[in-house]
Amino acid sequence: MTVGIDPGRLWDDLMALGTITEPDRPYTRRAFSPLFDEGRTWLGARMREAGLRTHIDAAGNLVGRRDGKNASLPAIIVGSHSDSVPSGGRFDGMAGVAAGIAIARALAAAGVDLEHPLEIVDFLAEEPNEFGLSCVGSRGISGCLTAEHLKVTNPKNETLAEALIRVGGDPARLGTARRGDIEAAFELHIEQGPVLEAESIDIGVVTAIVGITRFEIEFKGRAGHAGTTPMPGRRDPLIAAAHMVGWIRERAVSLAARGRGHFVATVGIIEALPGGSNVIPRSARIVIDARSEARSLMEEFRSALDQESRSAADAANVERGKFAILSDNLPAACDAHLQKVLGESAASLGLTSRAMASGAGHDMAFLAQIAPAAMVFIPCKEGRSHTPEEWASADAVADGTRVLLDAILKLDAAPAAKVLAPRGAVS
Amino acid sequence: MTVGIDPGRLWDDLMALGTITEPDRPYTRRAFSPLFDEGRTWLGARMREAGLRTHIDAAGNLVGRRDGKNASLPAIIVGSHSDSVPSGGRFDGMAGVAAGIAIARALAAAGVDLEHPLEIVDFLAEEPNEFGLSCVGSRGISGCLTAEHLKVTNPKNETLAEALIRVGGDPARLGTARRGDIEAAFELHIEQGPVLEAESIDIGVVTAIVGITRFEIEFKGRAGHAGTTPMPGRRDPLIAAAHMVGWIRERAVSLAARGRGHFVATVGIIEALPGGSNVIPRSARIVIDARSEARSLMEEFRSALDQESRSAADAANVERGKFAILSDNLPAACDAHLQKVLGESAASLGLTSRAMASGAGHDMAFLAQIAPAAMVFIPCKEGRSHTPEEWASADAVADGTRVLLDAILKLDAAPAAKVLAPRGAVS
Repeated sequence: MTVGIDPGRLWDDLMALGTITEPDRPYTRRAFSPLFDEGRTWLGARMREAGLRTHIDAAGNLVGRRDGKNASLPAIIVGSHSDSVPSGGRFDGMAGVAAGIAIARALAAAGVDLEHPLEIVDFLAEEPNEFGLSCVGSRGISGCLTAEHLKVTNPKNETLAEALIRVGGDPARLGTARRGDIEAAFELHIEQGPVLEAESIDIGVVTAIVGITRFEIEFKGRAGHAGTTPMPGRRDPLIAAAHMVGWIRERAVSLAARGRGHFVATVGIIEALPGGSNVIPRSARIVIDARSEARSLMEEFRSALDQESRSAADAANVERGKFAILSDNLPAACDAHLQKVLGESAASLGLTSRAMASGAGHDMAFLAQIAPAAMVFIPCKEGRSHTPEEWASADAVADGTRVLLDAILKLDAAPAAKVLAPRGAVS
Repeated sequence: MTVGIDPGRLWDDLMALGTITEPDRPYTRRAFSPLFDEGRTWLGARMREAGLRTHIDAAGNLVGRRDGKNASLPAIIVGSHSDSVPSGGRFDGMAGVAAGIAIARALAAAGVDLEHPLEIVDFLAEEPNEFGLSCVGSRGISGCLTAEHLKVTNPKNETLAEALIRVGGDPARLGTARRGDIEAAFELHIEQGPVLEAESIDIGVVTAIVGITRFEIEFKGRAGHAGTTPMPGRRDPLIAAAHMVGWIRERAVSLAARGRGHFVATVGIIEALPGGSNVIPRSARIVIDARSEARSLMEEFRSALDQESRSAADAANVERGKFAILSDNLPAACDAHLQKVLGESAASLGLTSRAMASGAGHDMAFLAQIAPAAMVFIPCKEGRSHTPEEWASADAVADGTRVLLDAILKLDAAPAAKVLAPRGAVS
């Protein structure tokens, strides 16, 4: 019997999951909230209907498992997350979980047993949450959730360890969540960017999940009366900060054009203090979010940013009071063999595809530390995400799920030769 | 008998007035507050000790009057204000009121009667206050306090008319405050800028009080995910706003160098929304404070700002959503004859002086609408003002007061030929 997903059922699942939201700010189902529990209860029921045995692992991930014919083989994982940002969308995360359930359902309906075990996973708390830590569950599976992480507290002074227990995890036995038995990990996700839609391409095969480095630069000058301080001799730190905003864009455009993968840099936060219309600022601050597929580009950017901000301070006769790296994550490469299989599956289904980096972080960035990992992107409307207007068509969701199912069947029949080289960071 | 001020008594007055402050945030004596009343009670007593008859006019100004020998002559006025900004200084305003009292005291001590009446005035509410209207008293004297102004309310929903009654004014008879009988109006004030101190000059003779125009420009682009939106095709409004910050400084430097008087422009407020580190801003806003001694320079600046902000929006592929003039005041010229007399008085006292514009607003900007008006600036430490560190030396305060007294004596002996040309705005 041919295995095929039921696109109507898949779409209905996705829309039904979307109704589990804070009613006055759709679509909100934040990790660790009662609504999150309600969503998981609903998801667990769908998993069991699809023939999966469900449990919550020690890191708080909801796992639905279907055994394989060969008990000695490692598992194929399909997963994403069911938590959302406040006033987010119905696709970011949810589409990937629903796709996994649709695949399990298709196998069950067709009576097909894979050689490998198959696990559909709802990774815990992928989005930024009240503990200030994203990808909690996928960190746990990959051994990256530390004792320090477990101690962080939310505004109610609850520790992450306590919250983990509340959702069914077991922080005392966190090591049991760490997996060493994964053949391949897949995630379907909306692109959250405009490229696939603009190029009318059905499927994005993700090459890498970018590394993200956040910088904070503060310039300090001398406050003064905006009327009585003559232009010559002013020490206005906003002049230096504004120069950097323009420079950062130009440099990012140039690095992106190098042909060495995705590079973007954004100034989303700018502040001048004290912030009065009639006062020359005493300080000005910018926060820069830079993302690169290639670590070498990020290192080049960091070095040039350091140098240019010193020069800008000198030119404006102000001090560069702060040059801080707020966070710094390495890029994670997707597995080359899995990328190849996904591209072949798309082609065999008559779908167009292209290689592309993910500019956003995903659970697969952590899975890539311990297993071959790969992602399928589907087009979303105008690239919008983290907003109620977030949208992907039912066809796009179904097409991405078909590609995943086809790749899993191919991989199950002919698993890749084991590669022993270290995984994760790319140069 | 020679008329001479008592510098020790003048300084003691100034320091004593400074002690009437909110104890936990010196130096604060805001208009319409109980402390403001307390300050005025103290000032009224000093005025009467100096031989002045005191009253509160309909616009709430505290006036101390000394009749002249010739009852038909118009008055010579010396005034400034006793209210402060929150956490302000002890000199801005206070020094000018104390100087007036010292002059009256000197005349009384020497038994000298002027031909003209002399009035020492504490103008009501010169600083920005909880009604959002500065120069309340000097507006009243010059006929610029309107029925609309009287209706504005403070956060306690009290109208300005009600507050005027509370401080002894009479809004129903506001017309009686308007003066048509002023020979000359003088004000001593700290420079609030760095020029006199830097050039080691004793006295600034003010040529004009700048016009102040405030602009708000908002650029609107398209918010987007900082990671997934490629650099080409971004519509980031902060790029346009940052460009304007640099352009505004360059253009102000160039206009200031024209040799057509004081020109400054400042961006003290900048805002990017939504203001998240990982979100390309959807909008960016700047507020510009521009001040010019010559109206023509301001008009040139406005026109160029308009044009450049359109170009910046085009270049960044964003919209210029707003180009608003938040407020627009004309420059006020000081009287040429009074400037000449003040310069001669400084020279005859062995003091150095220079002509300079006032980059800050003052009560004299309103007095100049109805009478010959002039100002004496004295050096202040590092140009600082509106801060507890505001400071002028006892010598500087005394020197400025001596110049005023000398000019008043000269003017009283030989008043200027009446000039009938309209006063106030300069080209």
